[in-house]
Amino acid sequence: MSQDCIFCKIVRGEVPATKVFEDDDTIAFMDIAPVVKGHTLVIPKAHHDLLVNAPVETLQKLIAVVQRVATAQVKGLQADGVSVSQVNGRIAGQVVPHVHFHVIPRFVSDGHHANWMPIKYATPDEMRQYAERIRSAL
Amino acid sequence: MSQDCIFCKIVRGEVPATKVFEDDDTIAFMDIAPVVKGHTLVIPKAHHDLLVNAPVETLQKLIAVVQRVATAQVKGLQADGVSVSQVNGRIAGQVVPHVHFHVIPRFVSDGHHANWMPIKYATPDEMRQYAERIRSAL
Repeated sequence: MSQDCIFCKIVRGEVPATKVFEDDDTIAFMDIAPVVKGHTLVIPKAHHDLLVNAPVETLQKLIAVVQRVATAQVKGLQADGVSVSQVNGRIAGQVVPHVHFHVIPRFVSDGHHANWMPIKYATPDEMRQYAERIRSAL
Repeated sequence: MSQDCIFCKIVRGEVPATKVFEDDDTIAFMDIAPVVKGHTLVIPKAHHDLLVNAPVETLQKLIAVVQRVATAQVKGLQADGVSVSQVNGRIAGQVVPHVHFHVIPRFVSDGHHANWMPIKYATPDEMRQYAERIRSAL
């Protein structure tokens, strides 16, 4: 638990939230600033700032709830698709430093557009060099 | 396995890919159209089209590899953050109908901007109605 963390306050019941799911380890609740209506957050009750710092078992419990919420968005909201987003670090757009998954129902004409702009590696060799730097750190 | 699926072809070795990780169930390889250099895809070897249709055990194996790759991007590429994205359905931007996680290293001034545009519920009650529709489908 972190004293000042808004998500920890939701877990403790000190800040209200509209929950859709709760068990011993995880809660899912409505994002009050949705990018599409129905946008739900899935978080662990324990405080971990980043994906890389959370126990893998915690992530495995979270992804199971993400799947359940996504399925419920398809069934309950008749969503045409689902976008799952999980960001780490301010540069990535993380506002609350408590690991969370965004589960966003998608609809034809929902007005939400990921700004997905592919770039190119200068050469195939540059891509292999990036791969090698990742591989050697695994 | 799906005969025509490009990711299944990568799994079978029929299409080349620059892999960073492989085990019995999962492979991770470089996205050839990265939104940031180092952008890696994590996929199950078995063919499942959508998150909602994959066995939960498959997702749990995937998220463990996502975490390993994210950690390696931080260590190996000195990433300042990591964005994880998993999309389902053409409306959500899914191009290859074989479940996959994008693991994207983020750097100050990497030029990648999520187009994150929060909207508002008309009333608190509208949010509660969405929550109830999700909850009742869980």
